[in-house]
Amino acid sequence: MAKTLDVKYESKHCYNIEIRPDFNDLGTSINDLGLDAKRVMIVTDDNVGKLYSEKVKTVISDTASKPEVHVFTLKAGEESKTLANIQNIYEALVINHFDRKDILIALGGGVVGDMTGFAAATYMRGIDFIQIPTSLLSQVDSSIGGKTGVDFLSYKNMVGAFHMPRLVYINTNVLKTLPKEQFICGMGEIIKHGLIKNNDYYNWLKDNSKAVMSLDDNALEYMIYESCKIKRDVVERDPKEMGERALLNFGHTIGHSIEKNSNFNLYHGQCVGIGAVAAAFISMKYGSLTEEEYKDIRETLELYEMPLYDTTKDTDANTIYDYTLSDKKRAGNSIKFILLHSIGDAYIEKGLSKENILAGIKEIIK
Amino acid sequence: MAKTLDVKYESKHCYNIEIRPDFNDLGTSINDLGLDAKRVMIVTDDNVGKLYSEKVKTVISDTASKPEVHVFTLKAGEESKTLANIQNIYEALVINHFDRKDILIALGGGVVGDMTGFAAATYMRGIDFIQIPTSLLSQVDSSIGGKTGVDFLSYKNMVGAFHMPRLVYINTNVLKTLPKEQFICGMGEIIKHGLIKNNDYYNWLKDNSKAVMSLDDNALEYMIYESCKIKRDVVERDPKEMGERALLNFGHTIGHSIEKNSNFNLYHGQCVGIGAVAAAFISMKYGSLTEEEYKDIRETLELYEMPLYDTTKDTDANTIYDYTLSDKKRAGNSIKFILLHSIGDAYIEKGLSKENILAGIKEIIK
Repeated sequence: MAKTLDVKYESKHCYNIEIRPDFNDLGTSINDLGLDAKRVMIVTDDNVGKLYSEKVKTVISDTASKPEVHVFTLKAGEESKTLANIQNIYEALVINHFDRKDILIALGGGVVGDMTGFAAATYMRGIDFIQIPTSLLSQVDSSIGGKTGVDFLSYKNMVGAFHMPRLVYINTNVLKTLPKEQFICGMGEIIKHGLIKNNDYYNWLKDNSKAVMSLDDNALEYMIYESCKIKRDVVERDPKEMGERALLNFGHTIGHSIEKNSNFNLYHGQCVGIGAVAAAFISMKYGSLTEEEYKDIRETLELYEMPLYDTTKDTDANTIYDYTLSDKKRAGNSIKFILLHSIGDAYIEKGLSKENILAGIKEIIK
Repeated sequence: MAKTLDVKYESKHCYNIEIRPDFNDLGTSINDLGLDAKRVMIVTDDNVGKLYSEKVKTVISDTASKPEVHVFTLKAGEESKTLANIQNIYEALVINHFDRKDILIALGGGVVGDMTGFAAATYMRGIDFIQIPTSLLSQVDSSIGGKTGVDFLSYKNMVGAFHMPRLVYINTNVLKTLPKEQFICGMGEIIKHGLIKNNDYYNWLKDNSKAVMSLDDNALEYMIYESCKIKRDVVERDPKEMGERALLNFGHTIGHSIEKNSNFNLYHGQCVGIGAVAAAFISMKYGSLTEEEYKDIRETLELYEMPLYDTTKDTDANTIYDYTLSDKKRAGNSIKFILLHSIGDAYIEKGLSKENILAGIKEIIK
């Protein structure tokens, strides 16, 4: 079992996504990059680090340039995604004399990946980094495409950079140690991939929920490969989010506001699922999505144990709307919304009224 | 009087450098970019701002998209070049609802330009910015080539990004209000341009010091154009400092250490001049630069009232050497040094011993 995807940037090979059942190929993959790093900093969090940092450290120490390997551990969770922690990473790099040829490795979920990428993008005006995503969400989504960043003034990813990794190495077996609620979060993005781009894949997900939820090796490998391919195709065509890449924000516009309103007590993936329900509802009410499709989407989300409603106490629809307005996807004064013509076919809608959006928000507040 | 240089990035037009005697063409130049900014933030400092921000604000407000124009004022000086101030800029952008189509304008010297560029590089993963450099040093050097950044833990430009401006607009007439010591600082970089790339230009500088120092309009225009052209040619061939661009660091390796050792009481340009003397001395002692050329360089620097020695009290050669070692130009354990084969012909030397470097340092300590 081993699959590899090639990601291009401006029509040239940029990096590989390697999907493997273990860490055994990691050393070879890094050697193939031909780096000349004398120092490597593995950035991880306190959950993932205690499970995998020793193993990864051993593999890296043994690569061709025999680098000195350091480990920097963040407290797990979105609250760590701050500029203050980025400065802590810079400080560790300075103290250990990291130079422009040295590299960072992100070993963890989306928070670790985004932060490590941003530190790499800005330390000495940019050094190389490698993604080893360990959550389902980061494996199929955030590790691919070079978006990096941190939250600022409680706005998600308000500060960041586009900085491509040199390699994305996915060990599917680490999903066996991922808490179930986090696995489900990843499913939010995965179902989104089917919804926006591929009806057949969506149907496969609907038909194979048992194999996926029981972490069947073949099902996981197939699913991660298919989802990475959808994400890869989109970011190749639109690396800087000037157009098509915005489709990946399906479910995110309202989802981010739900997440913020919950004070980050709801998971990102849960919020994307809830946001997807709202966006699908708007697609039905003001677009061409059928009621049957809308119901089908809700059922599929339920198969994967995703919440369909914002469970935060006393959520006010107008508050969610206001957060949505001030979210960074604003273009001028109109909000860019991603809607569905049908399952597998998403589009960008800029002309939604406050009434349209509020209707969607009300659908997901109980 | 008006000259324009075209700067390419990866063989495609990237931005113009426009050299003008006033701000009259600024509006037209911005309109020609076809931006759709609804908001513009002019970042300046308290010296430059009080002289020129109102004028620039009026011109910008009147451009095609009739943007809302804000002014953010930093305290003048290198001490402002911090991540804390970058966060203050982000905060002003968030509060004023800046989105990805809005732009920043750097109105000031190198500190303002580097910081504005870094804020633009990282706000929402990158927005557009325009350079309006007002010091001689920033006009011929730091505003061109997309290097942005801030100091970190007292290391200069330790954190930053490559982010190209959309326009560099140089009003040579603002040099009339520039303090003389800062004008002289710019001359440090300008003489450097001649030394590393163009013997004829170096000779012109030697022969025209009176016209230049009396701020003769034609002399300034010619000089700024020639220096921008040298800088432009180098950054076009090597935008990310993988090779040739390092030549622009002539005088900077030891210069930065002198600057740090002085606790930034000596100006950057003065330190570059002092560093150039050290590098020229090493070029003579261990390379092919003749003693006559070395003396000529010292005389030219003196024509422009540049210091030839570090005037900081009790400077210790070993301290300067240690700072140099930990400076960010390190590649592994050897220091990349820029030396001169002859005037107008620089090269990268990686094999200097501690003894070689210390000899250069001792030459500039009285």
